[in-house]
Amino acid sequence: MPPFPQRLKDLGITRPTLLLDRNRAVQNLKRMKRKADSAGIRFRPHFKTHQSAEIGKWFRSAGVKSITVSSLDMALYFARHGWKDITVAFTANPLEIKAIKSLARKIKLNLLIDSGELARGIASALPAQVQVWMDVDVGYHRTGIPWDDAGQIVDVARAIRESKKLVLAGLLTHSGHTYHAKSAAEIRRLHQESLLKLRAVRKKLLEEGIHPCAISIGDTPSCSVAESFAGADEIRPGNFIFYDLTMSHLGACRDEDIAVAVACPVVARYEAWNQVVIYGGAVHLSKEFMMDEKGRRIYGYVAHVGENSWGAAERKAPVLSLSQEHGLIEMNDTFLQEIKVGDPLVILPVHSCLTADLYRSYLTLEGKKIERRQSNDPEPNYSLDADKRR
Amino acid sequence: MPPFPQRLKDLGITRPTLLLDRNRAVQNLKRMKRKADSAGIRFRPHFKTHQSAEIGKWFRSAGVKSITVSSLDMALYFARHGWKDITVAFTANPLEIKAIKSLARKIKLNLLIDSGELARGIASALPAQVQVWMDVDVGYHRTGIPWDDAGQIVDVARAIRESKKLVLAGLLTHSGHTYHAKSAAEIRRLHQESLLKLRAVRKKLLEEGIHPCAISIGDTPSCSVAESFAGADEIRPGNFIFYDLTMSHLGACRDEDIAVAVACPVVARYEAWNQVVIYGGAVHLSKEFMMDEKGRRIYGYVAHVGENSWGAAERKAPVLSLSQEHGLIEMNDTFLQEIKVGDPLVILPVHSCLTADLYRSYLTLEGKKIERRQSNDPEPNYSLDADKRR
Repeated sequence: MPPFPQRLKDLGITRPTLLLDRNRAVQNLKRMKRKADSAGIRFRPHFKTHQSAEIGKWFRSAGVKSITVSSLDMALYFARHGWKDITVAFTANPLEIKAIKSLARKIKLNLLIDSGELARGIASALPAQVQVWMDVDVGYHRTGIPWDDAGQIVDVARAIRESKKLVLAGLLTHSGHTYHAKSAAEIRRLHQESLLKLRAVRKKLLEEGIHPCAISIGDTPSCSVAESFAGADEIRPGNFIFYDLTMSHLGACRDEDIAVAVACPVVARYEAWNQVVIYGGAVHLSKEFMMDEKGRRIYGYVAHVGENSWGAAERKAPVLSLSQEHGLIEMNDTFLQEIKVGDPLVILPVHSCLTADLYRSYLTLEGKKIERRQSNDPEPNYSLDADKRR
Repeated sequence: MPPFPQRLKDLGITRPTLLLDRNRAVQNLKRMKRKADSAGIRFRPHFKTHQSAEIGKWFRSAGVKSITVSSLDMALYFARHGWKDITVAFTANPLEIKAIKSLARKIKLNLLIDSGELARGIASALPAQVQVWMDVDVGYHRTGIPWDDAGQIVDVARAIRESKKLVLAGLLTHSGHTYHAKSAAEIRRLHQESLLKLRAVRKKLLEEGIHPCAISIGDTPSCSVAESFAGADEIRPGNFIFYDLTMSHLGACRDEDIAVAVACPVVARYEAWNQVVIYGGAVHLSKEFMMDEKGRRIYGYVAHVGENSWGAAERKAPVLSLSQEHGLIEMNDTFLQEIKVGDPLVILPVHSCLTADLYRSYLTLEGKKIERRQSNDPEPNYSLDADKRR
């Protein structure tokens, strides 16, 4: 295979293109799988980041059998692609009972419950048993029963046990507050705190005669930096398959682990302002940003180009603003002199989940197109027959 | 037709859905058309906001014949849907010469040029004449030749005139800095400044014997609040068809003019925290935000629901955070008491162009699905035959 700079040319980039370094994604996947295996816990990766049946196959080849998704539409898509054990890791939406019933009939469906009322409502409509997890809040304050509200947790657990259709799987949390940590050490501390809180809840439930009760945790920062998962039964990271600038900034990965990037052609150079304009805007990168040390909003960095793939982010070449279709990059004279109109720049994303969601396919560095699920399909597809469109 | 609250229920919202109030969009369209007609200037609306062949027909019914787009892919789409006079309002991308040639053969194509080198490069490959506009920067500093660099402007105009394939149409600017204005009065001032600068450039070109030279301006804030367009020959606003919270905050429209909104079901209520969680996140609303008076990032507001459509934004019910698929809304007790899990909330978007871009279709309040163009199609379609997929 030719070196990366030549491959990048060979790809014939004429407009913003979502590139995927397959080798890196597979390395990220294998590293996380090994980590779960060494800890002796189930690896139930979150598929919201890649949303691709093809990439799902790489997980299956690595021995993964259970997955996580964040919507029933996504569960239907992966069930059509042969996945038989799926957790929908967000409070069950009773309006989507049609999708829930369709899935409950055919696969091992896992739902998230945060109240006795929701448990009874869902159970009454189910055609078959489903496993349910109690959504517990350990500090992120997005959803879930507060971990220290033992009364409510016991009540919900009892409502679940009283239903013949629901099987209590255990406690599930998403410690999303790790994304706001300032260091890997702080992530480790938050991770250990989360596990302590969940173990305390489990102890309380045992005292009430409620067991078995598994513990499921999930965020990519914790799963990337943690050395111990004592007390956990499964992990559900998602972003790690691609990582991104937010994760490398947190210390959860290196820039060189980032497996997706957007190739954007330069359409204009402004030497007087030390700026270039790329074809590549909010609809190609997303408006997710991070702050640099000068307090400016950064929507991505230009990556250096190495022998085999892209390399580290060039912090002196930030994407400083995005209009709908175009972006503005600041760079110093030295860098600017090397760039011509028409050159493709490789932009590392701030949040790969949102960037990838803007595309219908990935282009691998070998030039292969890999399709991904369409978000916001006009019509939900409730059928679980193998997807005929592929 | 039943009143709006009942219609909203009849739509059967089970997941985030992009609603379109057709009457409002048509009113916004007619208002802007009348304004251009009264000023005696061409109305060349920007279609990047709606990107829908069907909505394009409403413009055609109102007498619009010339349009603006922001990418060659978008130009190809609308050319396939019968549009014969299209301006691609961003620096021409020489890498997309295949699309440029395909369009130049069949329609009256207008391109944007910012250097003599680009003019010569494009001209040498063209099969037929195209009109070109010089991109002039009057203060936004995104792209364009600085308006006070007369030497460069004259050079580029000469390069255009020396080519047999390029016809100089005139000067084009996008005064995007109006989006950062603090009041309607400031928008009017920036608008008049832009026109003064462009008239000065035109005078300079006339002195050099370069004419005719039209003036094209475009931003929605200016076109919405301006009372005079003296010196302009055409306007190219886009966002006005839907408007959004950014525009109503600027004073460019009222909340009651906003023609798109996202219906999101409530999936959880947290009375202790005065919060509800909706199914509707960054992939349904976009991460575009505005700041409230407390300095918080706001990703949308819940709209009041009126008799015929949604009404004003409830500033006490802001969307305070977004994860990939879900959003968190703060609200006071009174509002919270009225809301049940499963109710659809109508969320007004901060930036309608980016929100609409996340969907493949609109749902009108009458329950009709209206398709929109897919951004980031895996393969560009260079054919200009009428779109067979419809």
